[in-house]
Amino acid sequence: MTTTVIVGGVAGGMSTAARLRRRDEEMEIIVLEASGYVSFANCGLPYHVSGVIPERDSLLLQTPESLAQRFNLDVRVNTRATAIDRENKTVTTGNGESISYDYLVLSPGATPIMPPITGIERALNLRTVEDVDTVIAALTEDVKTAAIIGGGFIGLEMAENLRHRGLEVTVIERAPQIMTPLDEEMAVIVEKHLVDNGVTVITGGDTTDIAADRLTLADGRTVPADMVIASIGVKPASDLAADAGLEVGERGGIKVDEQQRTSDPSIFALGDAAEKLDAVSGEDTLVPLAQTANRHGRLVADIITGRDVRRTPTLGTAIVGLFDMAAGSVGWNERRARAADKNIRVIHTHPSDHAGYYPGAEMLHLKLVVDADTDAILGAQAVGGAGVDKRIDVIATAMRGGLTATDLADLELAYAPQFGSAKDPVNLLGYVNDNMVSGEKTVQWHELSDALSDGWTLVDVRTPGEFNAGTIPGAVNIPVDDIRDRIDELEGRKALAFCRVGQRGHVAASLLTHLGVESANLDGGFITWELSPAAQ
Amino acid sequence: MTTTVIVGGVAGGMSTAARLRRRDEEMEIIVLEASGYVSFANCGLPYHVSGVIPERDSLLLQTPESLAQRFNLDVRVNTRATAIDRENKTVTTGNGESISYDYLVLSPGATPIMPPITGIERALNLRTVEDVDTVIAALTEDVKTAAIIGGGFIGLEMAENLRHRGLEVTVIERAPQIMTPLDEEMAVIVEKHLVDNGVTVITGGDTTDIAADRLTLADGRTVPADMVIASIGVKPASDLAADAGLEVGERGGIKVDEQQRTSDPSIFALGDAAEKLDAVSGEDTLVPLAQTANRHGRLVADIITGRDVRRTPTLGTAIVGLFDMAAGSVGWNERRARAADKNIRVIHTHPSDHAGYYPGAEMLHLKLVVDADTDAILGAQAVGGAGVDKRIDVIATAMRGGLTATDLADLELAYAPQFGSAKDPVNLLGYVNDNMVSGEKTVQWHELSDALSDGWTLVDVRTPGEFNAGTIPGAVNIPVDDIRDRIDELEGRKALAFCRVGQRGHVAASLLTHLGVESANLDGGFITWELSPAAQ
Repeated sequence: MTTTVIVGGVAGGMSTAARLRRRDEEMEIIVLEASGYVSFANCGLPYHVSGVIPERDSLLLQTPESLAQRFNLDVRVNTRATAIDRENKTVTTGNGESISYDYLVLSPGATPIMPPITGIERALNLRTVEDVDTVIAALTEDVKTAAIIGGGFIGLEMAENLRHRGLEVTVIERAPQIMTPLDEEMAVIVEKHLVDNGVTVITGGDTTDIAADRLTLADGRTVPADMVIASIGVKPASDLAADAGLEVGERGGIKVDEQQRTSDPSIFALGDAAEKLDAVSGEDTLVPLAQTANRHGRLVADIITGRDVRRTPTLGTAIVGLFDMAAGSVGWNERRARAADKNIRVIHTHPSDHAGYYPGAEMLHLKLVVDADTDAILGAQAVGGAGVDKRIDVIATAMRGGLTATDLADLELAYAPQFGSAKDPVNLLGYVNDNMVSGEKTVQWHELSDALSDGWTLVDVRTPGEFNAGTIPGAVNIPVDDIRDRIDELEGRKALAFCRVGQRGHVAASLLTHLGVESANLDGGFITWELSPAAQ
Repeated sequence: MTTTVIVGGVAGGMSTAARLRRRDEEMEIIVLEASGYVSFANCGLPYHVSGVIPERDSLLLQTPESLAQRFNLDVRVNTRATAIDRENKTVTTGNGESISYDYLVLSPGATPIMPPITGIERALNLRTVEDVDTVIAALTEDVKTAAIIGGGFIGLEMAENLRHRGLEVTVIERAPQIMTPLDEEMAVIVEKHLVDNGVTVITGGDTTDIAADRLTLADGRTVPADMVIASIGVKPASDLAADAGLEVGERGGIKVDEQQRTSDPSIFALGDAAEKLDAVSGEDTLVPLAQTANRHGRLVADIITGRDVRRTPTLGTAIVGLFDMAAGSVGWNERRARAADKNIRVIHTHPSDHAGYYPGAEMLHLKLVVDADTDAILGAQAVGGAGVDKRIDVIATAMRGGLTATDLADLELAYAPQFGSAKDPVNLLGYVNDNMVSGEKTVQWHELSDALSDGWTLVDVRTPGEFNAGTIPGAVNIPVDDIRDRIDELEGRKALAFCRVGQRGHVAASLLTHLGVESANLDGGFITWELSPAAQ
């Protein structure tokens, strides 16, 4: 009888186990899970801290008993795999048992990064059900303040949920911005929203000391911290694999081929512990996401049971919800594309999530990064109150389908005024891209000061009322509807037009070009500029 | 100077005009609109009747004056084009004027179908701003009841909005179901929801007489009707084109090539009046949707101004919101695929719109129709409270990108528990399809009675509690977790398993096959069966 041993019983490991059983009733399937729980809702943990998810039991999707009953699985919790003997094909557990395998699947996940700061041992994590229990137990009445080290997805989710519990919360991020999957001018929208909801956010903050009730930063500032949460990031739990001589990549993830096989053909790896293939670059990467782990679990089970299937490269689609705002991304951001020296087009838009004439429309902030040589979509970002997930998912699907940025213009998306617009925000991204392909010049917020030095005249084409309420320093006001009458004011000049979001700017730039004035449009208009560091 | 005359100033016509101007400042652009308004939000009209959209002005996106100012357009409202002289390239208007054109763009829309029923002249339509004014003026205090003839999108939106006004509302649909883009077992979910919200729905109802305060149906029933709304459907407004000798298709739409050119190369047609190319069949079709008209308007403007671009075929993606429920579709439904004798796979699922452990999850009803020979996605339908638009848009994008049904399993969609699941409902459709490709047999609700005649044993694999609360007649109860112990009860039989939604049924069918029992899974489980006519 074939035996498969699976190390790790959460997303990836448990997907493997259940799928294995559905495809093979005879196989012995043993799951070793270091924590006390399997198949728990790890993405729900922060929400139980606040009581948004009130019942602890609802986080526990399965138990060893239910899995034994349904899938005839041998699930052993509180059982850590401590060593692999590849020659004899055995796994040793923490209690000294040696288990033989025909196939070994490594899905142990990732471990929190704990930087060597004095007092770091006081910091709590949030990776397991036990972690949640610890955090909740620590939230006694005298805990009034919390400091969260790390402004990534989980750190920010914890900030929200601890605010819901009434704590004074500070997030300290070492990088110049929170949420590094986003570019800085997009991340700042999230940061403002956190601040509006009572969270203190410190970027560029380097924690040097953790005392009993406060943190100290490198610049001497102190942050009140009855509780400290460390969510700096995670590193792949690849020690077990490395100790067994399996190949580990430079990012620390277990190296796998396109069938998730490690350098030992009897051993597979997946989930946060394993490397992924980046869909944009074709290079190895790390993407610690539950949905990728699940998909790869199904894949590994199929391969072990004889199907010749292969992984698809990873886009890293991700989203976070924070105080009724959502922020999502897929693929590469501008920072990464520029670091890779790509020739890119960048597009910012600020459309309504649904038709403006129907009640409740909210502004969406979208960003698209396009390969200017091939028109391929490199990535997208979205921040807003509603409709963020939909636009990210549509673009992720377009990327998977190999559609170009211009193809977005022609997507047929469901329209009724509650759900979208006759020209959906995703279509509009395609239109803007098509305009650029057709020769319209746009200027990014970070190129503005160079453009002004280069002699461009900044023209605010909004109404005088909008202009007087605040504009970009140095701008002159010629409303778009007055351009034909006032074109002589721009004779012999290069006009950089901008409006609130970029649409009137586009109309103005087209018109100026037709009227013989060299023109460009400030991408994303006043709103993108105002959100960006250029406005600070 | 080149002159372009555009007939029709709403979605398609006005998109053409604005885009023409952005690409050509010199061209004379004349827009002739038969009604008193241009560029109005036609999809918002029903919502102004109830006051959900309170301000009439918010429906009027542009005026002739604002369009003259911004785009230098010559927009003439209350001006009907009555004849085209193709030889002399002139259009005659209702007031006798003759206007010369170099290019003529026909975007006159569609006209409501008014069947020859006695009293039909009392029925109101809802296509223009004037129509809305008429309906609102007619809603005097003594109007307590309304009958809506036609259960399509606009008819149902009117039903909701007249309910909001407090009227007793009856929808009368001649077909056996409302919302014909959906298949019957999907449409019935919408029908139940309308009934739950106080709308009376009569299907198979043939109105034969309209009196002052009631309708009479062919079966003698009467329906109270202080107000009558006719929303039977629309026919392309192609008379002007036909009278000028332009080719008109058998469905009544103006025939166009892939550059929206009519049989006269100087004349283009688009919007509800023109034929479209069906993306699934490659044949001509009619799709009266605003977003298609907008896209084709941009296309026509690009072609007139010298770009060599072509239309993409039409998927007919559509959605309607009704009392906080949404129903959407894309591509072909099962009825159409079977009528075309396609070899198809059909999948029904009932997942939560987001992770079940996070508060507020609502059930979605999804249906996928797949070409069993090629694995191409033929179409999809979705009904539910939240997340309908997203899943339809993702599948529409997948179809445009040429992804197969199996590819849906590997889409990387944004997951946080507020927005989706680690295995998104769209991924699950891909998984189910993949299981079928791998040989799992499923039975549709409409195949059930044949299967039972054919000797299949119906096995309810839910818990005894679920079984006792109601099951499919003839079913025996063997819970999925008991199958290994009770397999002898099924020895020598063919087992058709079902659960609530199909997932445990899949686990059971896989297990039964492994245990040597010929098995199948009832697609969509008890819920699909219960909703279908098979349960009535």
